[in-house]
Amino acid sequence: MSLTLGPGYPRAVTTPRRAPGGFPVVGIIGGGQLARMCAAPAAELGITLAVLAQSPDDSAALVIPASPVGEHTDEAAVLALAEVCDVVTFDHEHVPAEVLAAVRAKGVPMHPHPEALRFAQDKLAMRTRLTELGIACPRWAQAHTVAEVARFGDEVGWPVIAKTPRGGYDGRGVRLVERAEDLGDWLTRAREAGEGLLLEERVPFVRELAVLMARSPSGQLATWPVVETVQTDGICTEVIAPAPGLDRTLAEKLLTAGAQIAAALDVTGVFAIEAFETRTAEGEPGFVVNELAMRPHNSGHWSMDGAVTGQFEQHLRAVLDLPLGQPHARERWTVMANVLGGDYPDLYPAYRHVMARDPGAKIHMYGKGVRPGRKIGHVNVCGNDLADVRDRARHAADYIQGVVTE
Amino acid sequence: MSLTLGPGYPRAVTTPRRAPGGFPVVGIIGGGQLARMCAAPAAELGITLAVLAQSPDDSAALVIPASPVGEHTDEAAVLALAEVCDVVTFDHEHVPAEVLAAVRAKGVPMHPHPEALRFAQDKLAMRTRLTELGIACPRWAQAHTVAEVARFGDEVGWPVIAKTPRGGYDGRGVRLVERAEDLGDWLTRAREAGEGLLLEERVPFVRELAVLMARSPSGQLATWPVVETVQTDGICTEVIAPAPGLDRTLAEKLLTAGAQIAAALDVTGVFAIEAFETRTAEGEPGFVVNELAMRPHNSGHWSMDGAVTGQFEQHLRAVLDLPLGQPHARERWTVMANVLGGDYPDLYPAYRHVMARDPGAKIHMYGKGVRPGRKIGHVNVCGNDLADVRDRARHAADYIQGVVTE
Repeated sequence: MSLTLGPGYPRAVTTPRRAPGGFPVVGIIGGGQLARMCAAPAAELGITLAVLAQSPDDSAALVIPASPVGEHTDEAAVLALAEVCDVVTFDHEHVPAEVLAAVRAKGVPMHPHPEALRFAQDKLAMRTRLTELGIACPRWAQAHTVAEVARFGDEVGWPVIAKTPRGGYDGRGVRLVERAEDLGDWLTRAREAGEGLLLEERVPFVRELAVLMARSPSGQLATWPVVETVQTDGICTEVIAPAPGLDRTLAEKLLTAGAQIAAALDVTGVFAIEAFETRTAEGEPGFVVNELAMRPHNSGHWSMDGAVTGQFEQHLRAVLDLPLGQPHARERWTVMANVLGGDYPDLYPAYRHVMARDPGAKIHMYGKGVRPGRKIGHVNVCGNDLADVRDRARHAADYIQGVVTE
Repeated sequence: MSLTLGPGYPRAVTTPRRAPGGFPVVGIIGGGQLARMCAAPAAELGITLAVLAQSPDDSAALVIPASPVGEHTDEAAVLALAEVCDVVTFDHEHVPAEVLAAVRAKGVPMHPHPEALRFAQDKLAMRTRLTELGIACPRWAQAHTVAEVARFGDEVGWPVIAKTPRGGYDGRGVRLVERAEDLGDWLTRAREAGEGLLLEERVPFVRELAVLMARSPSGQLATWPVVETVQTDGICTEVIAPAPGLDRTLAEKLLTAGAQIAAALDVTGVFAIEAFETRTAEGEPGFVVNELAMRPHNSGHWSMDGAVTGQFEQHLRAVLDLPLGQPHARERWTVMANVLGGDYPDLYPAYRHVMARDPGAKIHMYGKGVRPGRKIGHVNVCGNDLADVRDRARHAADYIQGVVTE
């Protein structure tokens, strides 16, 4: 590996220094906040991390000593990282199949492995597989033409949801379509990329839920309580753990579906299932699966303070095939509120104010610069009174963000 | 600063990379496990650390990107660190007064500051000051000669405790003296160093307690529950939080003494008071102060999992003069058991076994090589049943250490 030194910031592209005692090195492709949030449990557990970051200022690179700079699409950069690690995992789902194949050819274990990761990378593959497994999904179709979109919409009712099968996140790559003609530009781009678009019916849902689990290569499964997620403009802004008033049978069905998906897809590491909670005409609760994520997930950030084992510790345990930790909630309620970038770049004074106002709030910042709507941190609050906990978490996040000023 | 590159381990002596948003950099002199355990809360809080380590393999240097290598006695190395930090704090109490003065001359704040730190560096100064404040101490004297030792022992009763005023820790620099003549070698060395020895009566105690507090430069004080500490061969092996069956009045007296010491000595950051719990002939509980530590302390490791705000997060908040976090216990009992180096250098298989046996145990490893008796990690267990919690913590620590094998 080469040595990169910037002006005023000498920094080596380091090989990770192995801790004595036989402790392993976990490589993470991608230096975002999910990689960063592995740093705390890794330091506590005695596990060394190495991160392939796009920049030395990436969220994870700021806190992990071995953070070589390179693209996740650059086979040489990914291989250089993999070769110094005992196992490789991911901050995101965007590593190309050819690069994953090159890592496999070197014999370095990856978790989740490419066959599983595919179902998080490609939403058409995900829908096809979940449907084969009999998992409840929104009605869906693959569309290449405006005529196909029109047919689907006429069948399931307008508007419909269109999704690019690859590369979307936080509401990007998702569009509400009122008329088939409106989708012309996306269809053209999809055709050029050699793929179809995913169309889904718009499901009338009661609320959104998420199931977070971890599965180890040995097949051990650990399940956190089902949570309620609150989305604003397609971005998760709040998570309530556990989901208030959740029907017990529905919770069991969701966990069973999660276990079935995990086993059938041979998922390893932490993964999340985002679902819509529905009601039949008779008022019976049900669900359909909206998305799969094969990595620690925003819907699991509450567990960092609210569960015996947080999702980032659990992910490290899982990808190392270590026995999994207890996922039980530590308190009756935990609410996580995301801090999104607002209008004020200087966060520290507001952060200081929030600490004074609420000494029990657990503030997590990602070391990221402010851009409107960007996830730059989150706040967890635990307690017995849901209304109070929710109010405190929301206020703290809004204050840091600059949405409220008192 | 210069660039140090070892064979196979390229590593720059880095300037810390500042996170955007106005977040500060905290410098820590010394790269031991106390500095290391600041890494997790710093990453979570969005605060950058920089550590002056003695070696790139120091416990803290393994997990903190900006870890220049240098001695804490080397003024130039300490100043180079201080100049890139907003505040400087300490992993240990051994930084010489001249070096502290040089940092002060550069205008970089230090917490604790040298005037306070002095009372943790010099046990004679500590005893003198606590006695002036009317804090209960064992009877003590300064001795330069065998005759003075004999006089003190005849007065308070043999054996007596002798302590080197500076540089001791974990039972080092402490000796049980049966006869004055036995102390000849230490007295000679003390004379050569231009100081006396501290003599203390051997206090007949019921058990050992510790008071852990944090104080900010603004004077805010936060107090964790009083804990019981269990020492084996002068090394802390177990901490029970809170101290079981502690007399309420005694607890209040201890906390009052802590607050008084903190204010009188203008202590900043986390500090610990180690005390002996005593009984009068009438069975009345009392205490005498044994030691002061002006830094996060082994007796506070339980708080990392057992309190809303752990001692390392609190120390960062305190030295940055941020509002302090809630120190309340999260569960009825937390027991911390230290993992000491044993006979087996390969810890990972035993660690794995412990995770399988007890998925609720919180395991903390320091990335340190095994040497017999060296503190290399600890285990926290929380729960409602003290006997069970204690047994689990002890077993997990002993198993990793190799003391038990089933």
